[in-house]
Amino acid sequence: MPTSLRTDLYELNMAASYRTRGMDGLATFSLFVRQLPASRGFLIASGIEECLDWLEDLHFGAEELATLEGLGFNESQLAALDGLEFTGDVWGVPEGRVVLANEPLVEVTAPIAEAQLVETMLLNELTFQTNVTTKAARCRLAAGSEIGLVEFGMRRAQSIDAAMLAARGSAIAGFSATSNVEAARIYGLVAAGTMAHSYIEAFEDERAAFDAFAEDFPGRSTFLVDTYDQGRGVEHAISVIKARGLEEHAAIRIDSGDLAVVTRQARAALDAAGLTGVRIMVSGALDEYQIAPLVAGGAPIDAMGIGTRLVTIADAPYLDSAYKLVEFDGRPVAKLSEGKVTLPGAKQVFRAADFHDTLGLRGEAPPAGTTPLLEPMLVGGRRQAFSVNPLEQAAARCAHELAHLPAALRELEAPEQRTPQLSSTLADLAEELHHRLRAR
Amino acid sequence: MPTSLRTDLYELNMAASYRTRGMDGLATFSLFVRQLPASRGFLIASGIEECLDWLEDLHFGAEELATLEGLGFNESQLAALDGLEFTGDVWGVPEGRVVLANEPLVEVTAPIAEAQLVETMLLNELTFQTNVTTKAARCRLAAGSEIGLVEFGMRRAQSIDAAMLAARGSAIAGFSATSNVEAARIYGLVAAGTMAHSYIEAFEDERAAFDAFAEDFPGRSTFLVDTYDQGRGVEHAISVIKARGLEEHAAIRIDSGDLAVVTRQARAALDAAGLTGVRIMVSGALDEYQIAPLVAGGAPIDAMGIGTRLVTIADAPYLDSAYKLVEFDGRPVAKLSEGKVTLPGAKQVFRAADFHDTLGLRGEAPPAGTTPLLEPMLVGGRRQAFSVNPLEQAAARCAHELAHLPAALRELEAPEQRTPQLSSTLADLAEELHHRLRAR
Repeated sequence: MPTSLRTDLYELNMAASYRTRGMDGLATFSLFVRQLPASRGFLIASGIEECLDWLEDLHFGAEELATLEGLGFNESQLAALDGLEFTGDVWGVPEGRVVLANEPLVEVTAPIAEAQLVETMLLNELTFQTNVTTKAARCRLAAGSEIGLVEFGMRRAQSIDAAMLAARGSAIAGFSATSNVEAARIYGLVAAGTMAHSYIEAFEDERAAFDAFAEDFPGRSTFLVDTYDQGRGVEHAISVIKARGLEEHAAIRIDSGDLAVVTRQARAALDAAGLTGVRIMVSGALDEYQIAPLVAGGAPIDAMGIGTRLVTIADAPYLDSAYKLVEFDGRPVAKLSEGKVTLPGAKQVFRAADFHDTLGLRGEAPPAGTTPLLEPMLVGGRRQAFSVNPLEQAAARCAHELAHLPAALRELEAPEQRTPQLSSTLADLAEELHHRLRAR
Repeated sequence: MPTSLRTDLYELNMAASYRTRGMDGLATFSLFVRQLPASRGFLIASGIEECLDWLEDLHFGAEELATLEGLGFNESQLAALDGLEFTGDVWGVPEGRVVLANEPLVEVTAPIAEAQLVETMLLNELTFQTNVTTKAARCRLAAGSEIGLVEFGMRRAQSIDAAMLAARGSAIAGFSATSNVEAARIYGLVAAGTMAHSYIEAFEDERAAFDAFAEDFPGRSTFLVDTYDQGRGVEHAISVIKARGLEEHAAIRIDSGDLAVVTRQARAALDAAGLTGVRIMVSGALDEYQIAPLVAGGAPIDAMGIGTRLVTIADAPYLDSAYKLVEFDGRPVAKLSEGKVTLPGAKQVFRAADFHDTLGLRGEAPPAGTTPLLEPMLVGGRRQAFSVNPLEQAAARCAHELAHLPAALRELEAPEQRTPQLSSTLADLAEELHHRLRAR
């Protein structure tokens, strides 16, 4: 698939116009989230690695140009796009780090045609991956440190691609496994899964199904106990676990009912049978809002499968992300559209230990006690450093960030919505430019 | 990418178990939506074409088996999966047709291992595509017959794949174009798009930007007028349109502000300048809930760009879809899990002209005045008929369905939520089986 055409037509219009006109000045675009969903106090940066791969590969050859000719681009426009590659610089926030509203996730500096062309793809990748990784991080926080989380959402994700990226984002956020075999293969994750209700229905009775499965997969027998009647399902599981000596490896899974109640019933039955080491997994319409009360209530749950609501980010399916021109040909620019005023200039986020960040211009000295958040990732269109295992590093960063996040930002329902304060240099520049544009 | 691994691990567990045990009886699974989101009175079937392609291609070769070996499958399990293909039958609802809760979108009959393996992929494809096509159809209904709709959501879709499928679904629902160049190429759609705010900012002033664009794209000049001040933006557009004689082809686009108000202001200015043929396009956080009042209020809008809320199905990002075993080895089956009881047997939907459908068994004679909705699509793993242009046919079906849909089902906010009545044969079978399972 010619990936350079994965863009909106207007990007190609503008790129063609710039290049035929000889407008090759450097432009800086800033990609940020204007406002977080009301339930979000933070975001976890995610998606930049795929973007870097794509930017390094971007090119316009015969196949792309043929398509553009069919769309009505004329000869000089096609000639102007022929051979286009991405030759610019990208500063970005490393995956796994916390980002707040108005803090750039990525800044792109390149000849304006190139910098413009990549808008659609960068927004697509960074918006969804940051959003789903953030949702997974909220689930991870809600579950506390004792409960294992498994990503289960492939069947309801908004496309197969989305399923892959949701598995990846969940791994960054601290999930221990995914049900998605292809994602496990691509990203080096742990694949997990056992049986569906249909497996039990395919046998003469439930115990026969459990016994067959235990025979076939003795090392990973998790028995789904709620196909017909959960109480009897647990009895059948106990009987098979004992008969086959699976006390060390077995678990049960419950996928329906009031999980706070039914997990206690199941735990009591298992314990009464002496199976205190057999673990309980739950699944079914779970996300942070269901996880938190289950954990607070002390439900005896060892692991959770988190699916649909996570991978579709059901409570906030998109972010208000934007990719805005902030500098062109050496001059700062801004727009004044109602409700969408932008801040000029290439920027840096100065991260404070307490997350009271400062947003400034890239060249500024960091305020005392802060460190710069954005790092140079591509220079002249090429990567600055290759990580052997970017996913593992991102997961480590995310775990560190979550451990240090202020309680007010971690709240599930109505967290503090913090924006960085502006450095005086940036504030002055913005005020002066907005004033000048309004006076035109 | 080995597409056969695009599945949940548990599907592979079950398939391996069935095949090593010689359980090769025919199973029928039914894929349906248990309950529609509260705001939905109907669904538009979509996604089956991709599923058929994938089912025909499904195979397990060396690459797949190597991955499975790494996951712990033993030698006899690998041997049992080696060479697996999909050899079964698929009945499905043609794309573009209306479907209600509990009405199967697809039924699969195949040796149980094959029928089980394809669950994850079928659910993924049919859930998202049906959901996004339905959302697009609601936008189409809300916009009435006069306003052109353009799909604009690529940047915020949940992955690039999702963006492609959203463009396709929108075309089925009656959108006239998409901003997504690659989707236009793949699916033969009309690509549309003009300029971003950044284009205006890259020039010395707005009029210079409009003039440059008009010079470069005289046949498709849509001027984005709200970068700095909409009133002056419209004046600049008028000035360029007149200077370059673009009265026939030009349009303006407004992306911010109260669209009911600002479109009237723009229309008045254009008309006063004698440019009654210049069209007005709007965009910005639109879906059916914003479209309906704009239309009802008579806002002078000729076209709308519909993006984020459509492609992420922001008000209902997933459907409660299920893929359930209903028959195995000649016997009907069901599960009794709390809130998730299933109906046994291979089924047919008997569609009534007034959408008071009947759900029955596949072999039943259609009740008077009804026609069967599901059609055989694969027999023995192969397509029964190839359509030269399935997308165009689906769009024609959808237009016909929407034109005949009862008002109660079309309501945007609180439509009637109808389920098909059960045929007496199906009702009797279900009652008998549920009773027998409970008595076990």
